[in-house]
Parts: sequence; C-alpha cells; structure tokens
Amino acid sequence: MTNSNLIYLDNNATTKVDEQVLEVMLPYFSKYYGNPSSIYEFGGFNSKVIKEARESIKDFFGAKSSKEIFFTASGSESANMAIRGVLEADKSKNHIITTKVEHPCVLNLYKQLEKEGYSVTYIGVNSDGEINIDEIYDAVNEKTALVSCMYANNETGIIFPVKEIAQKVKSKNKNTKVYVDAVQAAGKIKIDVSNSEIDMMGISGHKFHAPKGIGALYVKSSILLSPLIIGGHQENGKRAGTENVPSIVGIAKAANLAQEALEYENTKVKALRDKLENGILSKIYNARLNSSPYNRVPNTTNIGFEYIEGELILLNLNDLGICASSGSACTSGSLDPSHVLKAMGVPFTALHGSIRFSLSRFTTEEEINYTIEKMPRVINKLTALSPFQKELKELKERKGII
Amino acid sequence: MTNSNLIYLDNNATTKVDEQVLEVMLPYFSKYYGNPSSIYEFGGFNSKVIKEARESIKDFFGAKSSKEIFFTASGSESANMAIRGVLEADKSKNHIITTKVEHPCVLNLYKQLEKEGYSVTYIGVNSDGEINIDEIYDAVNEKTALVSCMYANNETGIIFPVKEIAQKVKSKNKNTKVYVDAVQAAGKIKIDVSNSEIDMMGISGHKFHAPKGIGALYVKSSILLSPLIIGGHQENGKRAGTENVPSIVGIAKAANLAQEALEYENTKVKALRDKLENGILSKIYNARLNSSPYNRVPNTTNIGFEYIEGELILLNLNDLGICASSGSACTSGSLDPSHVLKAMGVPFTALHGSIRFSLSRFTTEEEINYTIEKMPRVINKLTALSPFQKELKELKERKGII
Repeated sequence: MTNSNLIYLDNNATTKVDEQVLEVMLPYFSKYYGNPSSIYEFGGFNSKVIKEARESIKDFFGAKSSKEIFFTASGSESANMAIRGVLEADKSKNHIITTKVEHPCVLNLYKQLEKEGYSVTYIGVNSDGEINIDEIYDAVNEKTALVSCMYANNETGIIFPVKEIAQKVKSKNKNTKVYVDAVQAAGKIKIDVSNSEIDMMGISGHKFHAPKGIGALYVKSSILLSPLIIGGHQENGKRAGTENVPSIVGIAKAANLAQEALEYENTKVKALRDKLENGILSKIYNARLNSSPYNRVPNTTNIGFEYIEGELILLNLNDLGICASSGSACTSGSLDPSHVLKAMGVPFTALHGSIRFSLSRFTTEEEINYTIEKMPRVINKLTALSPFQKELKELKERKGII
Repeated sequence: MTNSNLIYLDNNATTKVDEQVLEVMLPYFSKYYGNPSSIYEFGGFNSKVIKEARESIKDFFGAKSSKEIFFTASGSESANMAIRGVLEADKSKNHIITTKVEHPCVLNLYKQLEKEGYSVTYIGVNSDGEINIDEIYDAVNEKTALVSCMYANNETGIIFPVKEIAQKVKSKNKNTKVYVDAVQAAGKIKIDVSNSEIDMMGISGHKFHAPKGIGALYVKSSILLSPLIIGGHQENGKRAGTENVPSIVGIAKAANLAQEALEYENTKVKALRDKLENGILSKIYNARLNSSPYNRVPNTTNIGFEYIEGELILLNLNDLGICASSGSACTSGSLDPSHVLKAMGVPFTALHGSIRFSLSRFTTEEEINYTIEKMPRVINKLTALSPFQKELKELKERKGII
C-alpha cells in the first residue's frame, strides 16, 4: 500500500495530518510526556500547553472563554457528550428536533433515545439539500429539550443557517438547547458561535488536518451538562481521562492553520472544486449535481451518475489511484443508498450512482485535471454496461445530445 | 522546561512513549491517513492494520478472540464503557461491589451511580493494602449486578487476586458481572483473562509507553454491553468514532514490547525498585513502607515519611529534577490525604507525608543511586522544620537510634 501518486478526493472522510501539525505534536510523545495533573514542573508544563491549546480552539469557535472548550476523542464523542449531557442534566423535557440529513452517528444516537422514550422530529430538506427554518420553528414546543442540526452536510456540503435556526428556536422556547454538529464545517468556513444563541458545537480534528482521535466541544458557559465519561477532574470535571497532550497540541495547531487557510479554502480550493464539478458535468451527459450549487462549503461536490452503480465507479477510480466516496465513511459497506440524497428526493436513477468528491488545501490542479480527464472514460465504460440502455437513450434525447 | 537530567519516577502517572512505538505510529499521520471505513484500498489498508493491532491486544489480555477487544480513548473511558455498558444492558439488578481503594476515576463513577439509585458496597483492605476475598464473596447477593476491582493498586502496587475474586463471585451469583481495572497492572505483570471468569478488563496505553489518548477494553464474548458512544459502526457498533489509527498501532506495539519486557520488569526493574526502597528505608529513620513488601507490581513503592508534608517533599524533589507523586495524578492539587492509604489505616503521622515512586524499564541504576543519595538530605531538612519534634524524638528512641 503506497500513497505515491494517490489522488485523495475524500477529505470529508478524513484528512492528511498537516506536517506542521505533526511537527508540533512530536515533542509531547517521548520528551515532554509528563502528566498535566502532576505537581512537578515536568507535568505542570503540559498543563500550560493545554491551556494555550484551549485558547486556540476558543478562538476557532469564536467563543468568549476557554472554559467553554472541552477536548474529546472524536466528533462522535463530542455529539454524544453534548446531546446526552444536556438531556441528562434536565429530564423535564422529552422532545428533540433534528434533521433527516444529520450524520449517521447522530441519527443512531437519536434512534437509541427514541427507544429510551424521547420523541424525535426529523426535519426534511428540499431537493437542493436546504432546510426550511420555519419547519424547525413550527416543530418547537414546550417539551422540546434539544434542537440538533449540522453546520454543513457531509455529503453535499450544503451549509445550514445555524445561527438563524438557534435564534428562531430560542424565540419560541428559550429553554430549548441548540447543538450544532460542525464536523464538516470546521476548516472550510468560519465556524462562529459569537453573537449567537447556539449552546453547543462539536468538531473533529481529523477532518481539518489534525490527527484522528481528537475532537472538541464548545459548551456555552450557561449550559448545564452532565459528563459522559466520569472520573478524574480533567476538562473541568466534564470529561475524565488523562489529557491527550500531543493531539491537543495538534488540534490547536490545525485550527490555527485552518483559520489562516480559510481564504485559500474559499478561493483556490473552491475554484478547483468548481473546475472538477464543471468538468464532469460538461463532459458526462448522465451526470447531475445532486445539490444546490450555492451555499456550500468550498471543497465538496456531490454528483449523481444516472443508471450506474456508485460502488463500481469508486472501484474503477481506486484502480486509477483516485479516492472518492459514495456517502459517509461510517456507512461504507452498506448497500443502502444515501439517506441524505433520499431525503433530498434525488431520483432513484441517480441515487445509487452518486459520488462525493471532497478536496483539501493539499489538492493540486494537476490532480483535478487528471480526474476530469479520467472520469468520462470510467463513466462511459460503466454506462455502456448498464442494463438501462433505453432510459439512457431517452436521457440523451432529452438533453438534445442525439 | 527541559527533561535533560530529569529523573522520572512517576511512571504510574504516565510514561514516556517508547521511541519504537512512536516510530511505528508515524506513517499513519501524514502518509497512510485513509479512513479505515473507506472502500478504496488506501482506507481498507488501515482497516487491516487495525485488525492486526487488535490481535496483538487480544494476546496481551490472553483473550480468546480479537472480537473481544475494543479500542477506547483512555482507561477512564474503558471503565465507563464497561461499567455503564453492563448496567444499561441489564437493569434488573441494582447492587454493585467495589473496593475502597479503586482509582478515583472509578470511585467517582460509583458516586454518580449511587445518585442514580444503585447501592454500592465498598470493600476495605488490610494495613498491607490487601483485600479479603471472603468479604467480597459475603457481599454478593442476588441483586449484585457488578463486582469491580483493580488488578493492581496505583498507589501501593499491591496486586489483587482478580481471577480468584471472579471465581468466588460467580460461584455465588453466576449472573453478576466482573470488571477488572488493569490500568496499573498492564505492562508490569501478565494481565490474563484466559481460564478466568473475568468478564471485562480495561487498560490505558499511556501507562505502558503507548501515547496518551488510547485505551482498550476486553469484553468476554458472552457479555451484553450497551455502547457509551453511539454512532457509526466502528468497534463492532460498540464505540463510535473514526478509529485513531496511529494510536491503535501504537498501543499494539507498546503491548508487544511490554510483553517482551515483562521478565526485565520483574527482575531488573524490581531490583532497582527494591534498591530504592531499601536505600530510603535504611537511611531515613522516619520512613516506613506503607504496604506489604510482597505481592506488588515490580515498579512501585509507597513510602511514608512521618511528621512531614508530602507536597513539600515533592517540591524539593522537583528542584532536584526528581519526579514522584503523593497519590494518583488525577487527585493532585487536592490537599486530602490519599483514600488508599486511609483505607489501609496508615497512621495520620505518615499519611500526609507519603510518596509513591514508580519506575519503568527506562529507569537507570544511576537515577536510583542519585535518588537514594538525595533523599536523606531532603527529608532531614524537612524533618528539622517539622513542628512535631517531640514525636520525632520519641520515634528515634523507639527505633533505638538515640
């Protein structure tokens, strides 16, 4: 297994650790390895290092105080800690609102909460993948404990108006808590809790060039949260376990670098994404953009190839050294079509042949050119093998190609 | 902050990552960074890497199948996942048995469970720090959901007969689950679930030269466990979150190295620990060994210095570049005397002046010689400043020194 000449266009699944991130982490493995809780200098030094890192993450979220920042081991833990945490802390309400297009991780948690007696309202999206704030507003009632919504969708990249959602929710029930899953927004757009009524927001380091195994959670200081992992005093008593010093240093550095790279992300990376998208859509007649072209994170495009199988496309791309995906990595291996695309009403003819390409600041123009060059051959080959030749011919005719 | 010339005798708090461990981890940050769940080779490769690591950890535990091994982010998470997991999975019983000398992490979880309606029996230890199996046996009843016990105590190093405990517990109630906290045993003695009735066992990587932020949990295949972190399919659906590939590779390598070093640990490290202990006890008249000298992990000694303050000792040692501790790192900063030593009935005259030294395979004879040389001066200085001069004189007389 080598990654020379690998074209990695699956950065919504995970990212390469930035060499600069790894570099700042390295001393904390075998040199400055003290336990931050120890009273001698060799430990206390690491406590200061964590404090600095917490400041960086505070700035990344636009939070007021570093006391509002908790380090976790993943985006999943952040979500579980936030959602379970507020529900445990106030058991007087039993209603939750979320969207049909949340990450499977969060949806599985809600399935479990339903079993435990919570009632969950799932808000849909339109065919562009966009949410209707009024639908959320209408669903809020006096028993609504929590509204939980993505900042950006992992499959389509569509950005949800989370600040407006929080404001609307609170205007109807000020006691309802608002959790934002910012895993796919962090590093792509400015994630910003300042001047907002968002109560909690979770991120995952490995989605923005920090290592796997580290996440963070913003919790507004006024929010009461029961801990998920109980034990030692770490993370202000909210999350037990010896602090993962190297990875905490790493996620802080990654956040700083992501902050600096935001403009590059929204100009250069966006331009490459658009080039890829336009290249594919213009060259392949049975390709369609599955979401709105607007209001997306700059690195993501989700393209449906009608009448062919996504898995076959991915395996062909794999042979060409191109990594892409058909949905969230967590649901890979499942043959069910994407719940996100289903919620958008993507026609079944494209549902099974939809591919997500997600770029990063390490993606080069050469890689995009290569992918644009190779895609038509892959798709044309698979299209020729499709059992839906009659429908494909009709599609061609509709598009005025023949 | 530098660690040149640092004498690190606090390996029960955390350990240096072995350079060999770091070396095998490194490629997984920025080179082989694929998501193990992705279907392309670049991801699938990491899935195989995790599979191999799971085999290593299976062998480390002496488990039957790698399906019984779950990766977590810490010893605390392992404990929470195991304890919450079995209690959630079977709510028909509400009684728990544990010991008074468990790690504060586990004790805090039990405090929380008491608030939630569980009744918890805390079994004491004798003045040597040893547990009486019959007391555990007597406490088991038909409502006992769980017995949870350390493999080795973090402060004294005393090893508990966990296999015998599990057998006794099951002989009285076969439905009672047995959790063993092996965080302080792993890497020091063979932790072994084979041919035992132990249901679950947790470890933490950073206690045996793997990095912080990675732990593991053994769960016997017959045990039903509700997940703590719900979401993706990872860890067989029992623990959501993208796998921390570098750290999983790291803990597996660390486990292999620890396994290989067990003999060294129990001969050379033990000899150094004994040398340190004997050196201090023979040179300092107001020093006493706080536990039995037998049946301990080979790297730990807990010595009480009568009529002086542990914190002052530690600060003086810090000035000499020696890292030691007065209890678990998690409770550092608290002025309460150790709950472990209190449970052992260590007299109050020594309770506040007790120091734990914990060695590792990286500890050298020079470091031990230096510590033995420096300790009398530190202790004599502080003893001279003690307000208990009358009592110290009596102690000297009792010992026949004057």
